[in-house]
Amino acid sequence: MSLRIGIIGAGAIGTDHARRITNTLSGAQVVAVTDVNPEQAHTLIDGLQLKAQVYRDGHELIHAESVDAILVTSWGPTHEEFVLAAIAAGKYVFCEKPLATTADGCRHIVDAEINAGKRLVQVGFMRPYDSGYRQLKQAIDAGEIGAPLMVHCAHRNPSVPESYVTPMAIHDTLIHELDVLRWLLDDDYVSAQVVFPRKTRHAHSKVADPQIVLLETRKGVRIDVEIFVNCRYGYDIQCAVVGEEGIANLPEPQSLLMRKDAMHYARVLTDWKQRFIDAYDSELQAFIKDIQNGALSGPSAWDGFAAAIAADACVKAQDSGRIETIEMPTRPAFYA
Amino acid sequence: MSLRIGIIGAGAIGTDHARRITNTLSGAQVVAVTDVNPEQAHTLIDGLQLKAQVYRDGHELIHAESVDAILVTSWGPTHEEFVLAAIAAGKYVFCEKPLATTADGCRHIVDAEINAGKRLVQVGFMRPYDSGYRQLKQAIDAGEIGAPLMVHCAHRNPSVPESYVTPMAIHDTLIHELDVLRWLLDDDYVSAQVVFPRKTRHAHSKVADPQIVLLETRKGVRIDVEIFVNCRYGYDIQCAVVGEEGIANLPEPQSLLMRKDAMHYARVLTDWKQRFIDAYDSELQAFIKDIQNGALSGPSAWDGFAAAIAADACVKAQDSGRIETIEMPTRPAFYA
Amino acid sequence: MSLRIGIIGAGAIGTDHARRITNTLSGAQVVAVTDVNPEQAHTLIDGLQLKAQVYRDGHELIHAESVDAILVTSWGPTHEEFVLAAIAAGKYVFCEKPLATTADGCRHIVDAEINAGKRLVQVGFMRPYDSGYRQLKQAIDAGEIGAPLMVHCAHRNPSVPESYVTPMAIHDTLIHELDVLRWLLDDDYVSAQVVFPRKTRHAHSKVADPQIVLLETRKGVRIDVEIFVNCRYGYDIQCAVVGEEGIANLPEPQSLLMRKDAMHYARVLTDWKQRFIDAYDSELQAFIKDIQNGALSGPSAWDGFAAAIAADACVKAQDSGRIETIEMPTRPAFYA
Amino acid sequence: MSLRIGIIGAGAIGTDHARRITNTLSGAQVVAVTDVNPEQAHTLIDGLQLKAQVYRDGHELIHAESVDAILVTSWGPTHEEFVLAAIAAGKYVFCEKPLATTADGCRHIVDAEINAGKRLVQVGFMRPYDSGYRQLKQAIDAGEIGAPLMVHCAHRNPSVPESYVTPMAIHDTLIHELDVLRWLLDDDYVSAQVVFPRKTRHAHSKVADPQIVLLETRKGVRIDVEIFVNCRYGYDIQCAVVGEEGIANLPEPQSLLMRKDAMHYARVLTDWKQRFIDAYDSELQAFIKDIQNGALSGPSAWDGFAAAIAADACVKAQDSGRIETIEMPTRPAFYA
Repeated sequence: MSLRIGIIGAGAIGTDHARRITNTLSGAQVVAVTDVNPEQAHTLIDGLQLKAQVYRDGHELIHAESVDAILVTSWGPTHEEFVLAAIAAGKYVFCEKPLATTADGCRHIVDAEINAGKRLVQVGFMRPYDSGYRQLKQAIDAGEIGAPLMVHCAHRNPSVPESYVTPMAIHDTLIHELDVLRWLLDDDYVSAQVVFPRKTRHAHSKVADPQIVLLETRKGVRIDVEIFVNCRYGYDIQCAVVGEEGIANLPEPQSLLMRKDAMHYARVLTDWKQRFIDAYDSELQAFIKDIQNGALSGPSAWDGFAAAIAADACVKAQDSGRIETIEMPTRPAFYA
Repeated sequence: MSLRIGIIGAGAIGTDHARRITNTLSGAQVVAVTDVNPEQAHTLIDGLQLKAQVYRDGHELIHAESVDAILVTSWGPTHEEFVLAAIAAGKYVFCEKPLATTADGCRHIVDAEINAGKRLVQVGFMRPYDSGYRQLKQAIDAGEIGAPLMVHCAHRNPSVPESYVTPMAIHDTLIHELDVLRWLLDDDYVSAQVVFPRKTRHAHSKVADPQIVLLETRKGVRIDVEIFVNCRYGYDIQCAVVGEEGIANLPEPQSLLMRKDAMHYARVLTDWKQRFIDAYDSELQAFIKDIQNGALSGPSAWDGFAAAIAADACVKAQDSGRIETIEMPTRPAFYA
Repeated sequence: MSLRIGIIGAGAIGTDHARRITNTLSGAQVVAVTDVNPEQAHTLIDGLQLKAQVYRDGHELIHAESVDAILVTSWGPTHEEFVLAAIAAGKYVFCEKPLATTADGCRHIVDAEINAGKRLVQVGFMRPYDSGYRQLKQAIDAGEIGAPLMVHCAHRNPSVPESYVTPMAIHDTLIHELDVLRWLLDDDYVSAQVVFPRKTRHAHSKVADPQIVLLETRKGVRIDVEIFVNCRYGYDIQCAVVGEEGIANLPEPQSLLMRKDAMHYARVLTDWKQRFIDAYDSELQAFIKDIQNGALSGPSAWDGFAAAIAADACVKAQDSGRIETIEMPTRPAFYA
Repeated sequence: MSLRIGIIGAGAIGTDHARRITNTLSGAQVVAVTDVNPEQAHTLIDGLQLKAQVYRDGHELIHAESVDAILVTSWGPTHEEFVLAAIAAGKYVFCEKPLATTADGCRHIVDAEINAGKRLVQVGFMRPYDSGYRQLKQAIDAGEIGAPLMVHCAHRNPSVPESYVTPMAIHDTLIHELDVLRWLLDDDYVSAQVVFPRKTRHAHSKVADPQIVLLETRKGVRIDVEIFVNCRYGYDIQCAVVGEEGIANLPEPQSLLMRKDAMHYARVLTDWKQRFIDAYDSELQAFIKDIQNGALSGPSAWDGFAAAIAADACVKAQDSGRIETIEMPTRPAFYA
């Protein structure tokens, strides 16, 4: 039986997920759409020639009998409300990041889910579904590099608009590393520090760019993440895990090896959408299969909560210039 | 509407395609299966928990009203018969290679399809659906390396069983290069030569290994393909296109970059099944979408015929030690 | 005319330099040797079949009329004394690191040299003579990557003996980065911080390994250096300079590209002596040529002093766990 | 004692070798120069501030008492005469390629040297002194890739002048592969074939470019060499040896690894002089050391003769389009 999905938020990402479900993935169909702008909902449906119904709002959609599971792809500040409503209705819900705009909001969702007695929420962190990160985790878990000691990361964008300000380096950019590194290392953060190198001449006035975030984990792993969002040359995600026996680096995206113009080169992507395109497919396919099998396995509400707490500490460290402690509550057995 | 597919041949590859259609791809379902061994058909259906019917033979399945399109994954010598039957029934058919065991057999299919007045046949050459080869074609077509002048290829397997004899280097191994290079260069072969280097000590007595096949195309491109099926170290497919302005190499499969044991290394695959796993998904997804859109675009019966003619010339060249002419009939406008 | 060189200290490194001058380099010969163990001096001379005289001590050698220039390769604590004596004698002197065992000692040498009114001292920092670092400096100076903003380094050894203790990570290991990065960036350090990741199980009890040293420069460049001296897999020196327009990485040492055993690999060196073997030749050849041309251009006494000051701050930061300020005196015009 | 060298031919390469001996190498000095244009000889001497004498002609220089060894860097057609004269005078002689302009000429030199009873001649094939090729030979000799079965080579230049005509692809370009591959494989050629791909639009009218030369050796190794002298993108020398257990590729020249302009790249050289600059140093240093040790070990007159015979067969194959046999006389014990 095909899983019947309702989408709250028919913007770019909601439309993209609808296309994915309809044309690429197996086992689901979009049957319901809603948006604060109803025309947008109709545009989504017409563009994909869906047989789907438009609902007045998210709550109506969540309660519709024909809807088995929910995708929350609306404006960030509305996420918490709709996820809580889906949990209350006992329906599976895939929520794009952020799970909530505050750590407290995430905590509410965690509490509601625990009360519901069953994992219903998956957060839209796609990196654990990237084939490169999966290879990396597999190598670590297989002991190929021994116990991880250090992780060197870079998160680089060619440029950002003027609306991108310093704290967004944490909430919009680093948030992906904060999630994926917890998963990769099976670990939690205990402290954060941020240092600011000389600012690139290509950065707008409201953003300190680049930044280096230094994290320490419970197991003693030291992580450095270079965030450089006006690096010019490309969208480039690097991750090297240094272990007791060796080092594993995230693979480069597949590219032709060219010899031309006095160079031996491979392309670096410039558009972030291309970098994790397969991971977006995989995360949603996993959500669908996991529902069919009756147990979610992807990034949980707890993972969203943990990333939010770490992000808050990093923003504090941006301001203070000091090493900030990250107080992470004990993980409930529910999320073990 | 989901495309209803019937599968003739419930062996390893038929089962794999059924799994793919059921769990991974969008827009189709398996509704019918047949096999010379009916138990095999039931095993396939049970393993995937399909609601599908078992038919007595391929012809019955082809004519079943509930079947929209056919997959021929039976024993090679039966392909021609079932493809011709599918054409006669006016149904789309995806046929695993070989399209027929002889060039004449392929010609019969080509003629039947032309008479039917509509492309109904796709041959299971998956390499044109590999993302690496697609990048390569895109670069060539965009003029990035100028006019192609030479192509250097290697097709290496770690080992082959004793049943693998010298001509299989052409029919089972080179056949993939024969297809994909025609597509890549938009060209046809005019001559073939085979030279035999010193034989590796790891080859069985009935196979000359390695071999080097030298091909010349209508446009004057010179191709060399090293076939080395007991190379020990891995399953490795190389393709470098040398053009007037530069060179493009097929990407290596994505792999972690490791530093360990006094080496800086990436893995080389050892199992051919992993190398083109995404291409198998894509070729079948394209077949399904193309049917929904009413026009096939993948490897055609003509492509199967052309590869068969070239393969026959290569086998002749293995025996003669001479440069053998490849007489390729003019491509009918139907396949333009 | 061949430059007549006297060597103080006939141990491993003195003997190696003697071999280099005799068999590899152009324009110089070893005419005098001394060692606290006179037999050692004779062994050096006999091994290379030199026509050279053995002197009773360094001072006698320094004052010998037949000696044009001095190589100080004796025990570290004696360096300052012999370098000062050479300056007093108005002779050029190449001193292996450390220039002196304390920053104060280095300062004495700097003062003596300024008083002598002429550059006479070259310190044995060989990395600025490595062809890879030279390419890196050339690219930076040519503006290929724009203004440097960050530098990510690693200094890894396969293992160290039990005698290697925590502060040696600075004085024996990091010292090379402290020198070469000043030269590379044409900059000075203003602060240092050291963080200690989880310790590798392969480290002896008296050494914290790995360590990460964070440096800040006057121009605002942020440098991180991973020091990992029991990394097991090899001797590996990494240096990536991130600039406003792009990134330049130190080349890997030249190595065969192998395909074998399910891997695609290049060798990583395991012996540090091989890594900079050409740089050792080049630094001494430059010393000889520069003397013939009448002006030294290599690492100066000031460079030795600056590295010593930075090293002292790093050791302090190891102990304090805090960000330590580096107070670098203004560079005298003499060393501009 | 410094070896006293006389140079016959003060053109570009003679001047370069003089500079090398004077400024870079150990153990020799230039004491004599001659040139058909005496002014050229004086220019060489003045440019390097040498204390050297100008001789009226090569024969006078060869017989001068003050000259220990000869460098022949004059016009190709004069090589045979001067090498024979040096042998007659019992003096060591380093002769730039070609040893003689014909295989017969080379044979005369071989015969004269055998009669002299001592190896006196080294031919200026520098590739066996390239560190990359030496690593390759070491790996082969150590059995790392098992018995060699195939070699895939490319010899690419960015462009050639109009004076470069089709046979020069053999005599000026392939000649280096013909020499180095014999040495690398410790083998001899038995047949040659040349095929002509579609001609690049960048080639002048008198040169077929690219060409592919196919060689077979006595041990059964099959070699293909792509010669592409208007490849545009760079000067690029490739050599992959495929063995029974694995493959070894010649290292790429050392280069920065850059990330810039949406690419991940390393430079490819464009000037052939840079590619083997270290090998030129090494071949001449070896010549000097070998004389001091009393026994030459570099490329011999026999190697020059063998390369000439193979080159003649390749030119014949260019014309005939056929597989041409290479009749190589048995190697005299003298050259074992």
